[in-house]
Order: sequence, then structure tokens, then C-alpha cells
Amino acid sequence: MQQPDRTTPIMVSMGDPAGIGPEIIAKAWAARHDRGLPPFVAVGDCRAIRQVWDGPVRIVTDLTAGTRLFDEALPVMTVEDGGDIVPGTPDPDGARSALHALELAAGLVRSGAARALVTGPVSKAQLYGIGFTHPGQTEFVAERCGISRDNAVMMLAGPGLRVVPITTHVALAEVPGLLTVDLLVAKARVTARGLWRNFGIERPRLAFAGLNPHAGEGGAIGREEIDVMIPAIEQLVAEGIDARGPFAADTMFHARARADYDAALCCYHDQALIPLKTLFFDDGVNITLGLPIVRTSPDHGTAFGIAGQDRAHPGAMIAAILMADEAATNRARCSAVA
Amino acid sequence: MQQPDRTTPIMVSMGDPAGIGPEIIAKAWAARHDRGLPPFVAVGDCRAIRQVWDGPVRIVTDLTAGTRLFDEALPVMTVEDGGDIVPGTPDPDGARSALHALELAAGLVRSGAARALVTGPVSKAQLYGIGFTHPGQTEFVAERCGISRDNAVMMLAGPGLRVVPITTHVALAEVPGLLTVDLLVAKARVTARGLWRNFGIERPRLAFAGLNPHAGEGGAIGREEIDVMIPAIEQLVAEGIDARGPFAADTMFHARARADYDAALCCYHDQALIPLKTLFFDDGVNITLGLPIVRTSPDHGTAFGIAGQDRAHPGAMIAAILMADEAATNRARCSAVA
Repeated sequence: MQQPDRTTPIMVSMGDPAGIGPEIIAKAWAARHDRGLPPFVAVGDCRAIRQVWDGPVRIVTDLTAGTRLFDEALPVMTVEDGGDIVPGTPDPDGARSALHALELAAGLVRSGAARALVTGPVSKAQLYGIGFTHPGQTEFVAERCGISRDNAVMMLAGPGLRVVPITTHVALAEVPGLLTVDLLVAKARVTARGLWRNFGIERPRLAFAGLNPHAGEGGAIGREEIDVMIPAIEQLVAEGIDARGPFAADTMFHARARADYDAALCCYHDQALIPLKTLFFDDGVNITLGLPIVRTSPDHGTAFGIAGQDRAHPGAMIAAILMADEAATNRARCSAVA
Repeated sequence: MQQPDRTTPIMVSMGDPAGIGPEIIAKAWAARHDRGLPPFVAVGDCRAIRQVWDGPVRIVTDLTAGTRLFDEALPVMTVEDGGDIVPGTPDPDGARSALHALELAAGLVRSGAARALVTGPVSKAQLYGIGFTHPGQTEFVAERCGISRDNAVMMLAGPGLRVVPITTHVALAEVPGLLTVDLLVAKARVTARGLWRNFGIERPRLAFAGLNPHAGEGGAIGREEIDVMIPAIEQLVAEGIDARGPFAADTMFHARARADYDAALCCYHDQALIPLKTLFFDDGVNITLGLPIVRTSPDHGTAFGIAGQDRAHPGAMIAAILMADEAATNRARCSAVA
């Protein structure tokens, strides 16, 4: 793959056209100077943007043109799948449009024609309704990249905190049984490599959050720390990875504690997402590690309830574009070194 | 019980004399004017304070004298149990001193001679070593007050967030099996009543955090919300309590969300403690609801590692004294109304 320079655009898929995706993409473009955004091209149904925004839009097919005119207008590769678009009212046509936009945007990044992929929010329920069989966009992109979904790691990041949930959308009662030495080691390896490739952190410090209160207090309150987590950490350390813990989860996320690690590996969804969303609700970014391409997304949903009302905040979309830019730049540097 | 007026002191037990308790009590006294602290009397081994602080100390036996001289010196009811005190090096004599100080301070509050109890940090390991059989200070105080430990509810509070862990120091794997409708209803009732008595909130809004990711997504990721939590909430609502949820725990604790409830009832230790300590690590307060007396404590431990080094921050102790003052004032008002 050719090394893209910074003038190659980032692709931003629009997500569900009836959600807030079109609005936050337009608002991100409007903030391009203030926030120092690199050129990006939106991919999706252009009508969805025009419906919620009266700024300048230019339909493009050539990405070079997209980069060139980015300063004057929001470049859009349009993907229209019939039907009216009603903000706040999703329908199957919109889901098809979201999926096709994702397919196209991901393909352009895989081909090397674009630097990074930022995905707008989709409705999983709507996607399932049109026959989409992946759990979410992350797994779809991983498959398109030829990567097993087990090797794609979801990291959530805000200013000064990165978290990786080791298990995700499973009932809490299932979590203890899912934690194995192999799983923890695999997630940590991808995380360590991802922190180097995407963020330029050569020897990332990984902190594991204990499953149990006070990290089990030496086995008095649960044995997973002793039976699973410590052996995994020992194996990682033997491999040369700076893995630490397990630590009491409740004292890991205040400002001073956050300064001691580059990513927190958490045993379950809420252990990772509570601190992230408590601190950075408006600008959290989801980045997928373990892929050959850079992929980020704003860490929020379609917000159908406020779509089309000019109430959506573009903070997380802007942060996702900036992180994609940073990661693509770092990857180019890593590749140049290697 | 006589209604104490504000000139009656608050009792502050020193906790382990080798921990940071003596230092943060002295520093709280030094901040009495800046922070508007009401008169309080420290209870514990006076030598522990003199060892780490060279400000004015007065040994008192009469609480009225304690209130009278509070402006000029830190009043201490001394409880000496032999042995040298070495900051950072706990021993059985120190544990005995901590326990006797707790007994005396709690007794004076129960008798009505003092307005509220603030407990300094103890070492449970040291207390167990001298034959203490309660899980912690909370259960000890509850028993002395004639209250079943099941009816004493631990609430953690910081500026703008109050959380109640429904289960506490148990392995995470045990949590789903411990959640019952009766338990949730009982905890919520004590919480609602406690918010009225201690904080003057007439119709407190209680928000339940779902056990599972996204509060189970309608049963797709775990059924505890449907089988246990919703029935409990319906029962509470039928009783006239403003109980809400269950909500997705990860989106409950950012600033805008916190404004929508007076207390969050959380299914397990870290679900409650992660947001609290992430946001308010230095000034979190533990308040016990369901007792006939007011009892608060700073939400941190003995910190033996920094004891005697003038590094301890009194923020949580000051917050605990202020909250005890607020709660005692509110209780007097509630009793006057009733």
C-alpha cells in the first residue's frame, strides 16, 4: 500500500441518514478552521445533509477534487437509495444507504485512496432489518479487511483516558466465565501494538482493572484476579509488554491515577464505559485496533430523538476525525521506520 | 432525645493513630474559618496529633468546653492505649485506641451530647487482629444504635453525585444472584427516607443503574432488569417513591445526567464507586443512612504509606464534617416539623 500523505482525504461515512450523522458532519466541516481538521469527504446520501444544513456542499466522485475544494465546501460522495429521508424517522432505505456508504468508504480506505475511515452512527436494529448479519460496523469493517473479529479490539478514548473493554455486549453474569488467560493476553497484545501504530507510544503502559471490588483483596472477594488476571499479566510481562495490575477499578480513573498508564484494560462493558462517558460524554471516540486501516467513530448513537433539530453537538465527530488524522500520521511514520 | 443546637459539637473519631486520621483532623481544624466548619471535638490518642502537628491542642472532657474553646485550639478527648505511636506503622495498641475512640464518640452522639459522628479511617486488618468481629465501622455503629446491619445503607457522596451500592464487598460473580426485589425495595426505602432526613429532599428522585450493558437492551443482554429491577421499581412507585430506571449505567454519570436524580442506586460496588471516585477522589464522603444518628466519614483509608509526612489532604475529612453538620441541621428541622 502506498503511503498516503496528509493531502489525501479521510472518509467519513454518514451513518443512518435519519440520525444526527449528517448534521454533525456538516458542523464538523464548519469548524474545520477553528479545530484544525484535515480534509475529509463525507460518504452518504447528500440529500440528508442538505435537509438539515444550508452551508455549501459539493458532490464529488474524485477524491483529489474532494481534498482540493475542502476549504470552500463540504465534499460529499453521494449514495442515494430512494425514498424520502425524514430526520428522526429511520426506515429500510436509510439503512441501505448507511450500509452502502460504509461499504464504499471502507473500500476507498482499504484501497489506499483515502487515509482513514471515520464511521457515523448507524441503527443496528434498522441494519438487522435489511439482513445485515454482523454485530456492528466494527465487525463488518474487520471482515472487509480480512481480520477475524476476535482480533479487532475496540478502544474508547477521551482526552487523557483510553479504555479497552475485554468483554462487551454480554450479560454481566457471563463475564467471569468469559475471562481467560488467552483472551486477556490477546486483547493486551493488540492494544499494545495499536498504541504504538496509532498513537506512537513505543512502550505503552497497560493497566488491568480487577474484576472484583478492591481487585479481589488477595482472593478474599473473588479469585479471578489470582486465577486468570495475574497469570495473564505475568505472561505479557514475559513477552516484554508493560502490563500492570490488576488494580482496584474504583481508584484507577481519577486524574492522578490516569497519568500512570496509556490504556486501561477493563473486564466488562460498564467498567470501561462508565469512567469514559462520565468524564468525556461529549467527545469520546471509538477506535478499532488490530485493523490494517485506521478506523474511528464518535462514541454515541444515531440520537433519532434530536435529529433534524439543530441540537446535535459535533464534538465527538470532530474528535474522531482528529484522532483518525493522528493515527494515520503515526502509521505512516511507523511504516517509514520499519 | 433532646434536639442539639448548632453549638453542640460534632464528634470526630481519630481512626488508626498510625494512619493519616490525626493529620487530616488537625488540618481540618486549621481550615475551620476558611471552610466554615462547625465546632467539633476529636476523639482519640492526643499524642498521635501532637506527633504530626504543632498547632494548638487542648485536651477536654467536657463537650461544652470543647465547643467554647474550638476557635482557639483543637479540642481532643484523649483515648490512650499505651505503646509508642509510629506514623505509618500500625500495631494492636493503635487498633485498640481506634476502637475505643469510635466507641466513645458514637456513644456521646447516641446520648444526644453531640450532634453527629464523623469517623476517621481505621485498618480493618488491625481491628480483626484485636478481635473486632464486625465487617467495618458502619456495622459496629449500626449495632450500637440497635439497627440491623441490613437496614444501614452506605451512601457515597461528592459535590453533585450521591450513589448507593446495593451490594458491596462480594465477588462480581455473586452479584446477579444477590439482587432480589425485596433487597432493592428495602435499600431504596432507606435511601429515600435518608435523603429527606439528612438532606431535606422531600421527594427524592432515585435512579437505578441497570446491571447489564445498556440496561439489558430489553432482555437481549441479560434479564435481571426485567425479572428483578422493573418489578422493584414498580413496587416503589406504587408506594409513592420516585424510583426510575433501570438506566444504562454508562450514560448516567456525566454532568447533565446527574442533574436528573438525587441518588443513583447501583447494583454492585464498582458501578457506584467508579463514577464517584473518578469525579471526586479527594472529597468523597461516606454517609450511613438508616441510623438514628448522623454518621459520616471521609471516603478513603488510613493511607499508612504517607502517614506522618505532612502529605495527607484534608478535603474528604472537611467534606465529611460539613455533611455531618448539614445532616444534623436537617434532622433537627425534620423533627421540628414532625
